Amino acid sequence: MDKNVFAVLMAGGVGSRFWPVSTAGNPKQFRDLLGTGETLIQTTYKRLKKMIPEENILILTNEKYNQLVREQLPGIKEEQIIGEPVMRNTAPAVLLAALKIRKKNPNAVMVMAPSDHWIENEAAFHEDIRQAVASCMEQEKIVTLGIKPTFPNTGYGYIRYEQDASKIKKVLNFTEKPSFEKAQSFLNEGNYVWNAGIFIWNINYLLRSFKRNLPEIFELFTKGDAVFNTPEETAFVKTYFPEAMDISIDYGILEKEDNVYMVLASFDWNDLGTWGSVYNEVEKDAQENAVLNARVLAEDATGNVISSFSNKVLVVDGLQDYIIIDEKDVLMLVPKSKEQEIKVIRQRVQQKFGEDLG
Amino acid sequence: MDKNVFAVLMAGGVGSRFWPVSTAGNPKQFRDLLGTGETLIQTTYKRLKKMIPEENILILTNEKYNQLVREQLPGIKEEQIIGEPVMRNTAPAVLLAALKIRKKNPNAVMVMAPSDHWIENEAAFHEDIRQAVASCMEQEKIVTLGIKPTFPNTGYGYIRYEQDASKIKKVLNFTEKPSFEKAQSFLNEGNYVWNAGIFIWNINYLLRSFKRNLPEIFELFTKGDAVFNTPEETAFVKTYFPEAMDISIDYGILEKEDNVYMVLASFDWNDLGTWGSVYNEVEKDAQENAVLNARVLAEDATGNVISSFSNKVLVVDGLQDYIIIDEKDVLMLVPKSKEQEIKVIRQRVQQKFGEDLG
Repeated sequence: MDKNVFAVLMAGGVGSRFWPVSTAGNPKQFRDLLGTGETLIQTTYKRLKKMIPEENILILTNEKYNQLVREQLPGIKEEQIIGEPVMRNTAPAVLLAALKIRKKNPNAVMVMAPSDHWIENEAAFHEDIRQAVASCMEQEKIVTLGIKPTFPNTGYGYIRYEQDASKIKKVLNFTEKPSFEKAQSFLNEGNYVWNAGIFIWNINYLLRSFKRNLPEIFELFTKGDAVFNTPEETAFVKTYFPEAMDISIDYGILEKEDNVYMVLASFDWNDLGTWGSVYNEVEKDAQENAVLNARVLAEDATGNVISSFSNKVLVVDGLQDYIIIDEKDVLMLVPKSKEQEIKVIRQRVQQKFGEDLG
Repeated sequence: MDKNVFAVLMAGGVGSRFWPVSTAGNPKQFRDLLGTGETLIQTTYKRLKKMIPEENILILTNEKYNQLVREQLPGIKEEQIIGEPVMRNTAPAVLLAALKIRKKNPNAVMVMAPSDHWIENEAAFHEDIRQAVASCMEQEKIVTLGIKPTFPNTGYGYIRYEQDASKIKKVLNFTEKPSFEKAQSFLNEGNYVWNAGIFIWNINYLLRSFKRNLPEIFELFTKGDAVFNTPEETAFVKTYFPEAMDISIDYGILEKEDNVYMVLASFDWNDLGTWGSVYNEVEKDAQENAVLNARVLAEDATGNVISSFSNKVLVVDGLQDYIIIDEKDVLMLVPKSKEQEIKVIRQRVQQKFGEDLG
């Protein structure tokens, strides 16, 4: 394993489309959403650990999840966790991570990845990352992994790339969540891929880009250079992080840079963004129900996602294509066709019965 | 209150049509099935206590529920509970109760009643019982309360009575659970009422009837005359109760006697035999859902019975006329139209996932 490779796992989201499994107190990435016996962040961490030294993996999360990270990833030390005291989107936290990494290793290449996606074919994933890393080592650039789109999904970001014979393709531009017609035309054009949120950066290039594109945050955080990776870091973050502007790494850096490249992913990927996508990736029972942490007696019931928090017995009669989620404080029965409304349902429940239920 | 009046509450059933709320370990009569804040047996007991001295109320139940009775009815003393060590239908337990009561008061009149029915208009109930009791005091007989039928229910027992001007009408015969056609013809004929399982007996008449109609049980249990209402009673019951034949009081006594009379009930009654009947008796929310011990967010969901064990939040979207029961170990989602199949569902769950779930 190359000591110059670092990973930064993004684990600060709330995952409200997976409420009530995912809550502000215990979100999606810390749950065993697929019923595999491990949480999503555990699976992601295990996958990265095979190619990146454990001590080189940082976790970016909300500070209220620090304890969850420590519990679920016992190999991670306190100084490898950046607990964001407030929500400021991705750019500020990524900059902090980059500064910590540069201090440890000025020749680093940094792999940034979501902690809650589904990836099949680990070997292919490792190979793609290796290619991107090698490319960032020899040249100062950003490489992203692009997923070959299979349908005009309007919930994803799209990357347009230059069609040529090279393995590492030049990125032309990014488009966030297009309309259906636009997505359809992207697929027809052929030189578009889905943005999986997996980026590989040359650390010096990334920091220069911050200095150029987001100078206020860069000035603010480089004040802490002396304390990064020391016990004083926490106090520094607590004081200065809230002053940072709220901006995403995509908007603040990626879309403004020229040296952005793309490796076409050779693995299967799913962002696990909705219950429907979870349904697609897990094993189904004889009646085509996806059963997660539950024991089910189904009668005239097919196409359902059935999840319990306690391996409870669920008797389901006469329901088709439902999302049936039994949590300790909330039971939700909603048709799959309304999966996008779960965020709103969560808000309504919080308004009606209390914030703590979200 | 007349010291000669005794009550015997039947509380030994399992209530499997209310599974998973009602289980062998904690059946229906000990649950707050209607969300009133008290269990069914507590409501029944309170109703009887207003007209019958507390110390004159006996509880017939399975011995495994003795503790539940003590917890839920703290006014009841150990010697007022007959804990049946095995299931032997109603006749043996009623005989034991009658022998205990005669020993205390040879002039007693005994009111036998289910512990898990719904009765509206308590004053009318008390008045009907008073009439029946008075009639049993002056003459050795059995009086039953008859419920005016409102539809041809095939799940109830029917009582045919002699149509005349008298207030206490002569019973001609009993019919258990008729076919729909038969039930319809009963309603057309007019001189049929539903059997609510509420009987008022002159104690001497009842005991003579046992001697005449069920001499084996009578011989067996009168051996215990010396120990009834003493600390030795429990040992006697443990030894001799299992030897008794398995027979109902209806079949073994009532149907064989001539001096059976009927008072037409002037109160509203419901046997709470199915979730549908529970739905009918409880308050409904704005969308006509019956919500029991739950906080509900309903969207396009009407006519449902929604029950939780823990005042949980239930989000119900798109379901009509469903039975939605959330218990600690089991969640059941079944259309109301299948309420009669719940017994079978319970068995299937027990076979598939373990006896303890029933």
